Amino acid sequence: MKRETFLEFRILQKRGIAGERLGEIETPHGKFRTPVFMPVGTQGSVKAVSPDELRQTGAEIILSNTYHLYLRPGHKLIERLGGLHRFMGWDGPILTDSGGFQVYSLAKLRNISEEGVVFQSHLDGSRHSLGPEQAMDIQQALGSDIVMCFDECVSYPAEYKYVERSVQLTSRWAERCRKHLNSPAQALFGIVQGGTYRDLREKSAQYLVGLGFDGYALGGLAVGEDRETRLRVIRETVQMLPEDKPVYLMGVGAPEDLVESVGLGVDMFDCVMPTRNARNGTLFTTRGRITIKNARYVDDERPVDGQCDCYTCTHFSRAYLRHLFLARELLAYRLNTIHNLRYYMRLILGLRNAIEDGGLDAFKKTFYEMRAENELE
Amino acid sequence: MKRETFLEFRILQKRGIAGERLGEIETPHGKFRTPVFMPVGTQGSVKAVSPDELRQTGAEIILSNTYHLYLRPGHKLIERLGGLHRFMGWDGPILTDSGGFQVYSLAKLRNISEEGVVFQSHLDGSRHSLGPEQAMDIQQALGSDIVMCFDECVSYPAEYKYVERSVQLTSRWAERCRKHLNSPAQALFGIVQGGTYRDLREKSAQYLVGLGFDGYALGGLAVGEDRETRLRVIRETVQMLPEDKPVYLMGVGAPEDLVESVGLGVDMFDCVMPTRNARNGTLFTTRGRITIKNARYVDDERPVDGQCDCYTCTHFSRAYLRHLFLARELLAYRLNTIHNLRYYMRLILGLRNAIEDGGLDAFKKTFYEMRAENELE
Repeated sequence: MKRETFLEFRILQKRGIAGERLGEIETPHGKFRTPVFMPVGTQGSVKAVSPDELRQTGAEIILSNTYHLYLRPGHKLIERLGGLHRFMGWDGPILTDSGGFQVYSLAKLRNISEEGVVFQSHLDGSRHSLGPEQAMDIQQALGSDIVMCFDECVSYPAEYKYVERSVQLTSRWAERCRKHLNSPAQALFGIVQGGTYRDLREKSAQYLVGLGFDGYALGGLAVGEDRETRLRVIRETVQMLPEDKPVYLMGVGAPEDLVESVGLGVDMFDCVMPTRNARNGTLFTTRGRITIKNARYVDDERPVDGQCDCYTCTHFSRAYLRHLFLARELLAYRLNTIHNLRYYMRLILGLRNAIEDGGLDAFKKTFYEMRAENELE
Repeated sequence: MKRETFLEFRILQKRGIAGERLGEIETPHGKFRTPVFMPVGTQGSVKAVSPDELRQTGAEIILSNTYHLYLRPGHKLIERLGGLHRFMGWDGPILTDSGGFQVYSLAKLRNISEEGVVFQSHLDGSRHSLGPEQAMDIQQALGSDIVMCFDECVSYPAEYKYVERSVQLTSRWAERCRKHLNSPAQALFGIVQGGTYRDLREKSAQYLVGLGFDGYALGGLAVGEDRETRLRVIRETVQMLPEDKPVYLMGVGAPEDLVESVGLGVDMFDCVMPTRNARNGTLFTTRGRITIKNARYVDDERPVDGQCDCYTCTHFSRAYLRHLFLARELLAYRLNTIHNLRYYMRLILGLRNAIEDGGLDAFKKTFYEMRAENELE
């Protein structure tokens, strides 16, 4: 049974030598270009910024978390209020994860079975269960444009036997998700698991591709494995997936991860790094990261990044940002977030332009050289 | 010696029966109309909002705190970086207080003498001294448009003898401030003290008027006295001051205080109430205050105030604001602050229009009636 959704993936430029490509994805809430970076709005808000500002940074699609919204304020409430887009005032595309990852990383996990998982809320310890069908129901209620299958995310290192059984479970869950989701306006992505084992990734990918999804995600990465291994798994797994569907690398998103993974054929990214780092006072610049509370910025009149066109960089000095951060002013978190998100959007834009011009290698070279100068840290 | 400053106070409409009037004050950073409400930007930032947003709420002048900026990041740093306007990115008028009130209310006060006060920082316990000359030097370094004299703010209740001596000290300090401030671009306001004693207020006012200031403030109110006493002191004191200078009621600013005090002849107000309440989840509306975390708003799709034109009210529901607040999302504090500031600006605008139309009594009647309906609490 072919899934009929509104999601349309158009390849604008076929893969280059390294696997990089350009695309465009159309959803019921508008289209976005790929490669794309999705800021994370965990609780129905990309922390510290308004929907308007988010748009101004260049964000075209955001991610929101099923686990958090299920617990608070509840998906049924959001549904009653017209869905997540309306609730949070973001009229662009939204991708929701399945809640699986958060159950493993945030909640107290009680039990995994064929049915799903039983866990305790990180908010109040209350007991809940989540399985493929519930994950679909919740995401359907939220009304996201892209729905993720419910999966088991295995941490690293993990024994082959365990990962093998886990891939089988995730495969059966994916099938149940596909059967259960009943909303043509929502696209459904499968999640390839298999840890760092190539043959298990292959089994996972084959099973999912056999079922047929609107896109494929790489899950279970950035969970403890080293960088080289991660890049190897990405490279191998992308090649197991169909050319005509978007590839989404879940939760992996340091600037260098983007730069490398785009070259391995990844189309979509999400990561809390720009927003979380902003709130911790770590700012991304063309020349590497800076820690804004550092004493060296006490009277530094320059913007965070002289090449950046964001509201923060065009209006405020490092000295002021340092003061706001040390004084714990709420404006600090917001100005930092605006800058970091804009940095990511400009990076993605730079990558797209480089791919278009066939100059990805040159772009990467400059990217690393600029950081190597490391003037700021 | 007449003080020559750029400050110009134009009376646009002479006092009505109750004492209300309309004016306009011109400063080196632009003009603003009176009655005016000044949002408080304690540490060089009106908490949770950007300068752009502040402007959009209708704010025309803001207040910033000498005590806080002196301690962090330091007035000399701000001076080196081009002054407070440039540092914080607000190009409109700024009034700075003298630091006196914060020394009494926030710091550990060690000693008051003829010289000034010795106190311990609330940040790190370090020892500092502040007197009339230092207060002028700091405000000169900050570069505010309106500078306040250094005074002693006496709490309530206070014995006549104590207040009498305090008024004498504040008078001598005012004279020293007037002598010391040496920046024609900055206007200097005297502060009338005297607690709730009419004759001491009179002595204080006479002394200051004799010295001659660009404006006169009523200090030492909202420090514990009851509402009736406060209004009595305001009414009496305004009449002791010259017609051709602005009258500023310091730190008093519940909506009903504004409504009443405008009718007693006050031209300028400041108060942390709109911003602080916003961060505590208390929102002002035409029909009274609402506590946004209240369960009754769980699925309330209406804006906070159907009559409000602010970004918050035109984009988000009470249900969403309640969710953000309960989830401690940073966006909550900002959206709440935008609304509360806009409420204050609309209130002041309404008062100005009412004065212009000779309809202040009718305005007050409607103001109290709307709140009496109290639909929301």
